[in-house]
Amino acid sequence: MLKRIHAGTITDSQINEEVLLKGWVQKRRDLGGLIFIDLRDISGIIQVVFNPDESKDALEVAENIRSEYVVEIRGRVVARSEETVNPNLPTGKVEVVAQSIRVLNKAKTPPFTISDDTDVSEDLRLKYRYIDLRRKPLQEVIILRHKTTQAVRSFLNQEGFFEMETPILTKSTPEGARDYLVPSRIHPGEFYALPQSPQLFKQLIMVSGFEKYYQIARCFRDEDLRADRQPEFTQIDIETSFMSSDDIMDMTERMMQHVWKEVKGVDIELPLPRISYAEAMERFGSDKPDTRFGLELIHVSDIVKNSSFQVFRNAVAEGGKVSLLNVKGAASDFSRKDIDKLTDFVKIYGAKGLAWIKLEEDQFKGPIAKFLSAEELEAISAKADGENEDLLLFVADKPAVVYESLGALRLKLGKELQLIDEEKFNFLWVTDWPLLEYDEEEGRYYAAHHPFTSPQEEDIDKLETDPGSVKANAYDLVLNGYELGGGSIRIYQRDVQNKMFKVLGFTEETAREQFGFLLDALEYGAPPHGGIALGLDRIIMLLAGTTNIRDTILFPKTASASDLLTEAPSQVSNAQLDELAIGIKVKND
Amino acid sequence: MLKRIHAGTITDSQINEEVLLKGWVQKRRDLGGLIFIDLRDISGIIQVVFNPDESKDALEVAENIRSEYVVEIRGRVVARSEETVNPNLPTGKVEVVAQSIRVLNKAKTPPFTISDDTDVSEDLRLKYRYIDLRRKPLQEVIILRHKTTQAVRSFLNQEGFFEMETPILTKSTPEGARDYLVPSRIHPGEFYALPQSPQLFKQLIMVSGFEKYYQIARCFRDEDLRADRQPEFTQIDIETSFMSSDDIMDMTERMMQHVWKEVKGVDIELPLPRISYAEAMERFGSDKPDTRFGLELIHVSDIVKNSSFQVFRNAVAEGGKVSLLNVKGAASDFSRKDIDKLTDFVKIYGAKGLAWIKLEEDQFKGPIAKFLSAEELEAISAKADGENEDLLLFVADKPAVVYESLGALRLKLGKELQLIDEEKFNFLWVTDWPLLEYDEEEGRYYAAHHPFTSPQEEDIDKLETDPGSVKANAYDLVLNGYELGGGSIRIYQRDVQNKMFKVLGFTEETAREQFGFLLDALEYGAPPHGGIALGLDRIIMLLAGTTNIRDTILFPKTASASDLLTEAPSQVSNAQLDELAIGIKVKND
Repeated sequence: MLKRIHAGTITDSQINEEVLLKGWVQKRRDLGGLIFIDLRDISGIIQVVFNPDESKDALEVAENIRSEYVVEIRGRVVARSEETVNPNLPTGKVEVVAQSIRVLNKAKTPPFTISDDTDVSEDLRLKYRYIDLRRKPLQEVIILRHKTTQAVRSFLNQEGFFEMETPILTKSTPEGARDYLVPSRIHPGEFYALPQSPQLFKQLIMVSGFEKYYQIARCFRDEDLRADRQPEFTQIDIETSFMSSDDIMDMTERMMQHVWKEVKGVDIELPLPRISYAEAMERFGSDKPDTRFGLELIHVSDIVKNSSFQVFRNAVAEGGKVSLLNVKGAASDFSRKDIDKLTDFVKIYGAKGLAWIKLEEDQFKGPIAKFLSAEELEAISAKADGENEDLLLFVADKPAVVYESLGALRLKLGKELQLIDEEKFNFLWVTDWPLLEYDEEEGRYYAAHHPFTSPQEEDIDKLETDPGSVKANAYDLVLNGYELGGGSIRIYQRDVQNKMFKVLGFTEETAREQFGFLLDALEYGAPPHGGIALGLDRIIMLLAGTTNIRDTILFPKTASASDLLTEAPSQVSNAQLDELAIGIKVKND
Repeated sequence: MLKRIHAGTITDSQINEEVLLKGWVQKRRDLGGLIFIDLRDISGIIQVVFNPDESKDALEVAENIRSEYVVEIRGRVVARSEETVNPNLPTGKVEVVAQSIRVLNKAKTPPFTISDDTDVSEDLRLKYRYIDLRRKPLQEVIILRHKTTQAVRSFLNQEGFFEMETPILTKSTPEGARDYLVPSRIHPGEFYALPQSPQLFKQLIMVSGFEKYYQIARCFRDEDLRADRQPEFTQIDIETSFMSSDDIMDMTERMMQHVWKEVKGVDIELPLPRISYAEAMERFGSDKPDTRFGLELIHVSDIVKNSSFQVFRNAVAEGGKVSLLNVKGAASDFSRKDIDKLTDFVKIYGAKGLAWIKLEEDQFKGPIAKFLSAEELEAISAKADGENEDLLLFVADKPAVVYESLGALRLKLGKELQLIDEEKFNFLWVTDWPLLEYDEEEGRYYAAHHPFTSPQEEDIDKLETDPGSVKANAYDLVLNGYELGGGSIRIYQRDVQNKMFKVLGFTEETAREQFGFLLDALEYGAPPHGGIALGLDRIIMLLAGTTNIRDTILFPKTASASDLLTEAPSQVSNAQLDELAIGIKVKND
C-alpha cells in the first residue's frame, strides 16, 4: 500500500516516484485544457497537474473541485520545465502529475480568503477561527508556541526540575477580587475559585521538599480587560528551594537563551544586564524600559532649583523634579503644532505641560528660554549633551508624573523617529523593587507584588520602623519594553511573615482565615525558597514579532472575554442553576 | 565559594572532599557523646556526624535540632568503618563529619511521622499534604508522573505532533449536566463551563489543518463521586487527521511501549491484542477485561435450553443466557456458606441467584444436579473442561445481568484465589463498540460514546434502518482490567452527522443551537479525523502500582470534591456574588 507523503516534503530526489497526497485545495487554475491545483497540508504546498493524457477521470473530477476541498491524490513526481520552476516554493522544482483524485470532503466558499495578509475584521476571523488558523502566519505562531514550550521543558528537565500540576479548582480569598468563581453542586452555597496563579501551591511544593518545580500553568483573572490581556492566560511557573535570587536569575536567563536559540536561532548574550528599579525610573521613566534606544531622561532639578523660572523652581520646592528628553537633531522637525501635540500626549499622564527649548544657531530658542539664566541654560545644555539642532522637552512635576509622562513620551518618540532596532532582543533584569506601596486614600500599605515576597535581608528590621523604604528581594525580566514576568525570594520564616501581615493591616485572625494553611506550612520545616513566573503568551508574541496577544492563543477570547466561536459565555438552563443552588440577580451597576 | 551538593549523590569517590549540604533532618541519634543525623533532600539521605573533636560549636547546635528542621551543613566526607556501613543506603559507605551547621528554619513536631508506611487517616494526611508529600513512596509517584508526561511528550513530538492549549473557560451545552459553571462578571447572567474534555476543540483543530494535536489536558466533571474519580483530572488528549483507526491504535500502543520502557524499564510486546466488544463480553463478562488470568465465562444456553430444569430453560426462553465459571480445583475449598456469600455478591449485579455444581469423585454434586439430565451434565462438563474438584458457578438471566454478575465474580475470585500475576501488564484493545445505546425508559437512543463518533463505514446506511446494530469506529485501551482511555474516528461529513443527530432525537434547530459551530466547521473542508484520550491519573496509578488515584495527584480532592488542605470549596463574600450578579438559593433536595 502506498503510504501518504506530505506535500511540502517532496523534492527533486523523488522524481518518477509514485506518491499519495492528502490535503486541502489551496487554489485551482485551468490552463489550456490542463488543471493545476496547489495542494496544501501542514507541511506546505505542492503543485498538482491534471492532464487528459495521464487520466481523463482525474481531470473530470478536478473540474469540479473548489478551494478548501479535502482531497486524496495519487500521482507521479515530475520535474517542472525550467521556465515553470517556482523559486518561492520549497517544492517549486517539481510537480505531481495526478493519476487519480478522490474528494474526501467538500467545502463551502470560506467567509474570507485564506491568504497570508488579510484585512477582514478580527471578529469574523475569531468566529471562524478554524478557518483563520489555516492562514500560514497564524499557523506558524501556533507551531512556534509548541516549539517554545518544548524548549522550556527540555531546558528545565535538564536542570533537574519536575513538572507538576496544581489544582484549577482552588480556594477563593477575600483579596481575590478578580477570582473566577465556580459554584459547587455537592456543597451548595460554596464556591471554588480558578487560580490567578499557583503561587501558594508552589510554595507548598517547596515545603514538601521537591526543591525544583515548574509548570506551564493556566491562570485566570476576571479583570476589566485591556487589549493585551486574556481572561485565561498561561505562565511558565517556576519555584526552587535553597537558591538565591542570583541563582534564579542566572537559571532563568540561561532558559531564555536556550529558547531563543532553539526557536529563533538567535544568540542572546549572557549575563543579562541588571538595573535597579530606581535606576530604571531615573534613566527611562519606566519599570520595564525598552533599552533598544537611548533618549534617556536627564534630570536638571539641581540646576533649576533656584531659577527665576517659577514653574521649575516651584516644582523642585514642592518635592518634585525637573527633567527632560534631548531629542537629538530634531529641532527643525518639530513645529510648534507638533510640540502642542506632544503636550497633549504628556497630559494623559498627568503632566501639567511640556516646556521646550530648541538649540539652533548656538542659541536657546523657545518660550521658556528667556526665563532661564544663561548659566542655567548652559548647565542644562551641558548635562544634556546639547548640540545645535537638538530639541529639549521638559516636564516639571511630582516625580511619579515626571517619570510616567517622560517615559511614555520617550517610547512614543522612539517609535515615531524610528530610533528602535526591531531586530534587537534587549533583555534586562529590573531588581530592588520596593516591597510595599502606600495607598494615600486608604492610609495603608499594600504589597507591591504579593504578601509572600521576602524583604531584602538587610531591610527586615525596617519592616516595623520604616516600611516604605524596605526593598523586596524581587526581580522582573523585561524584554524590549515588555514585562515578561517577575519573581522573588519568598518569606519562609513564620515571624517575618507575621511582620509582613502586620504591616499590611492583617490581624492574626484575618491572616489565619485566608492563609492559614500556608502559615502552618511555614512552621513545619519550610526551606528558603523563591521562584519566577513568566507570561508565555507575551513571550510568544515577542518571539513571533506580533503585537496582538490573540495571535498567540489557539482559541482566544475578545477584549470583553467572549469566545466568538463557541459563543461563550452563554445562558444556561434553570435546571442547571437549581442543581448548583444559585440564581441570577439583576445587577446593580 | 563551596557549591551545594545533594545528599543522595555522595559516594566514596568523594572521600576527604569538603561539602555543603542543605536539607531536612530526617532523624537525630545521640550516641556516646556524638550526634548522628540523617540529612534528607530530594536526592536522598546522608548520615552526618557531629563530634567534639571536629567542632564543638556544631555539636552544640546539633544538640538542639529536631526532626524536620531545615539545616545547612558544611563538612568533610569520610569512609564509614566497615561495621557501620549501611548497605540499604546508596550513600551507606560514607558519612559527613560536620564542621559547621546553621539552622535555616525550625519545625514543629509534624502531625504524623514521615515514614514510608503510615496508618494515619487519609483525611489528616490530605490536610497536611505538604508533609505527606515528604514520604518517599508518595514523592516517587509524583516524580514518576513527571517522567511519564515527559516520555509521552518526547514520543509525540518525535511523531510530529504539536502540543496545543485549548480553553478552560468554554461553553456549556444542555447535554452537559455535569458541567462546572463559571459565572461571568462582564456578562451578567451568563456562564462559562469548564471542559469535560477538549473534544470539540480538538476536532476544530483538525478542521484548521494541524493534522496532529496533543495536550496533557485538564478536564472537569461535576459528578457524584466514586472512590477513583476526581472532579478535575488529566488526560493525554490526541487527535489526528487522515489516519485510520488502525493507524491511531498502532501509534498509541507504540506510545505506551515507549512510556513503559522509559519509566519502568519494562518491555511491552507489540502489537497489542485486540478483541471486539462482543468477544470481551462473551469471554470475560466485561468491556475492560483483566486478561492476566483465565476463568473465562462458559456459555451453556444451547445445552440447557430444553432442560427440565425450569430456571435454566426459562432464562433461555425469555431471551437470556445460562453461563458459568469453572473454578478449577476449588470444590473442597468452598463450603455452602462460602457459596452463599458469592450468591449475595452476584445479587448486587442483579442476578437472581447463583447455581452451583461440584465435580467430586466423578460425580456431579449440588442442589441443582438432580434437575439436570446426565447428558446435560456431561455436556456442560465437557464444554467447561470439567475435572474432579472443579466448582461450577452458574448464572441464568438476561444477557446483561449474566455478563455483569459473572464478570464481577470472575474478578473477585481471580483476586481472592490469587490467580493474578501482579507483575504483568496486560494491555488490550477493545474494538467494534455499539454506536448507540437504547434507553428503554425514555424510548430513545443515546450515543454510547459521544455524538461525534463515526459509525463503521459499512454500517452508515443502517443508521436509519437498524440503528441498534450499528457499530462504532471506536476503540478502548484496557490494562489489567482498567480502562485507560478510548477513542474513535469522528464523523467528518455533514450529512452523516445529520443522520446521527436525527437518530439521537435532535431537531435541526437543537443540533444547531448546541453544536452549530462544529456543524459549520464540517462544511468548510473538514478532513477525516480521529483520536484518543487516555486517563493520565489512571496510567500513573498502574505504573506506580497503587490503587488510590489520589496518590497520583499532587493536591487531590476527597470523594466529596473537597480540598482539605486549602478548605475549598468555601463560602465567598456577598460583594463577590453581587459582582457576578448571582445569589445563593436554598437547595430543594
